Amino acid sequence: MIGALEAGGTKMVCAIFSDQGALVDRVSYPTETPIEVMPKIIAYFKQYPELKAIGVGSFGPIGVNPELESFGYITTTPKLAWQHYNLYGTLKEALPLPIAWTTDVNAAAYGELRQGAAQDVKNCLYLTVGTGIGGGVVVNEKVVEGYAHPEAGHMLLMRNEQDDYEGFCPYHKNCAESLAAGPAIEGRWGKKAIELTDNPEVWELEAEYLAQALYNYYVTLSSERFILGGGVMKQSQLFPLIRAKFAELNNGYLELPELESFIVPPQLGDNAGITGCYELAKDLIEANV
Amino acid sequence: MIGALEAGGTKMVCAIFSDQGALVDRVSYPTETPIEVMPKIIAYFKQYPELKAIGVGSFGPIGVNPELESFGYITTTPKLAWQHYNLYGTLKEALPLPIAWTTDVNAAAYGELRQGAAQDVKNCLYLTVGTGIGGGVVVNEKVVEGYAHPEAGHMLLMRNEQDDYEGFCPYHKNCAESLAAGPAIEGRWGKKAIELTDNPEVWELEAEYLAQALYNYYVTLSSERFILGGGVMKQSQLFPLIRAKFAELNNGYLELPELESFIVPPQLGDNAGITGCYELAKDLIEANV
Repeated sequence: MIGALEAGGTKMVCAIFSDQGALVDRVSYPTETPIEVMPKIIAYFKQYPELKAIGVGSFGPIGVNPELESFGYITTTPKLAWQHYNLYGTLKEALPLPIAWTTDVNAAAYGELRQGAAQDVKNCLYLTVGTGIGGGVVVNEKVVEGYAHPEAGHMLLMRNEQDDYEGFCPYHKNCAESLAAGPAIEGRWGKKAIELTDNPEVWELEAEYLAQALYNYYVTLSSERFILGGGVMKQSQLFPLIRAKFAELNNGYLELPELESFIVPPQLGDNAGITGCYELAKDLIEANV
Repeated sequence: MIGALEAGGTKMVCAIFSDQGALVDRVSYPTETPIEVMPKIIAYFKQYPELKAIGVGSFGPIGVNPELESFGYITTTPKLAWQHYNLYGTLKEALPLPIAWTTDVNAAAYGELRQGAAQDVKNCLYLTVGTGIGGGVVVNEKVVEGYAHPEAGHMLLMRNEQDDYEGFCPYHKNCAESLAAGPAIEGRWGKKAIELTDNPEVWELEAEYLAQALYNYYVTLSSERFILGGGVMKQSQLFPLIRAKFAELNNGYLELPELESFIVPPQLGDNAGITGCYELAKDLIEANV
């Protein structure tokens, strides 16, 4: 059996998979403080002494570079109780098993690559557009980490000349998160995204920013699939608009995949993250055999 | 023995390496038309019947996706005689050997990773800033290719508000190549880069654009090293300016590598490309054993 933990900013999803990959059990706990929720998570996994490994996909930023002291920690999150908390180390101490460790969005990207919307390709990017924008990247069937992990939501963008919304990211006025995450929509138009469904100008501008970010990922990665999820992407009218803007930005330059099957919603829904955690843990077991 | 061909827009560099990786011979031919230069290249490699494989890094765009008809071709290059020319196929027919095939900049990135400025890391990006801007990408010690290959020079950028130069890329007004390659410097300031060495405002703006491109690569790839070469980068005063602008754009958000050893010039100089071609051919032999 293999364990999976999707450590999210609002809930902690724990799951157990069989060796054949079947989801055997799944629970979730609110993300209170570490001292409240970590014992529940540890007790949950301890119920399964036959566990061979655990895969963890965590909200971030997190330390993923084994050569830095920050490895295993949730680092500069605005969630104060979790700042500089050693999530990996705490789990490893309580559960002495191989533990795969990456970001929640890298795990979701990998889950979609192995079992979801990108299972026929080797390179994909998963973008979640909600209260923030996060991106997970898979290249050659491996999640991308380098000095740190991708922070694709902070891609710097050209601002639309008519747009005078100042942006809400405290670090970058013009990054994708600052201009196109849920709070940017609300800040610019004065209403929540969900109340703006019928205002085409909202979605035209949103699509312009998201397409620009995708175009920049594409020239860097040549991804075979872009998977867009998160609360804002429930506005499914965005998909055709983003595809059209993407083609417009390309302006005939690069050979592109057929857009309809290139920029797509997730297939695994709420299970993308834990599925990716399971797959990463399985890889870890296989690599150690 | 292993062969290497760096197919550039102005010259074709052919080289022979020993199995131990020593450069045994190196010649170069002007990049005339295929009908003129291809027989020379083929005759050169035919002198070495003991060749086990050849690595090719070509100017582009090229077809690298084996599932597309464009595989092996130089595709939409402005060099008319080479448009839609099957370089890989022509070599393969004349020299029935394993042939590694990627872009010139991917080969240079891989050469620098194996033997040059990035030999201590697993992830790097090589950017050449000259008559155009090209980028090669290595992730987890492999060159990045997906649906096609990276075209990192066409990263879309925020324009500096004071800059009214219109850009020269026929496809994108605001891409890095359009705003920061050699012809953009000449177009904006009315003189060649080399005559502008003493004009600090030229290099401040150039550094602003290049740092922006690097920042966007960084949030996507989390690269451990950025290697900047090409004619424009001979203006070595750019390096400290780019590092400073990069830190400014980050604005304290991401944990960054020490900048001095992060944004660096190439170490292999003119041999980066053929060294990468050799290394790719060697990998191909090892994968087939």
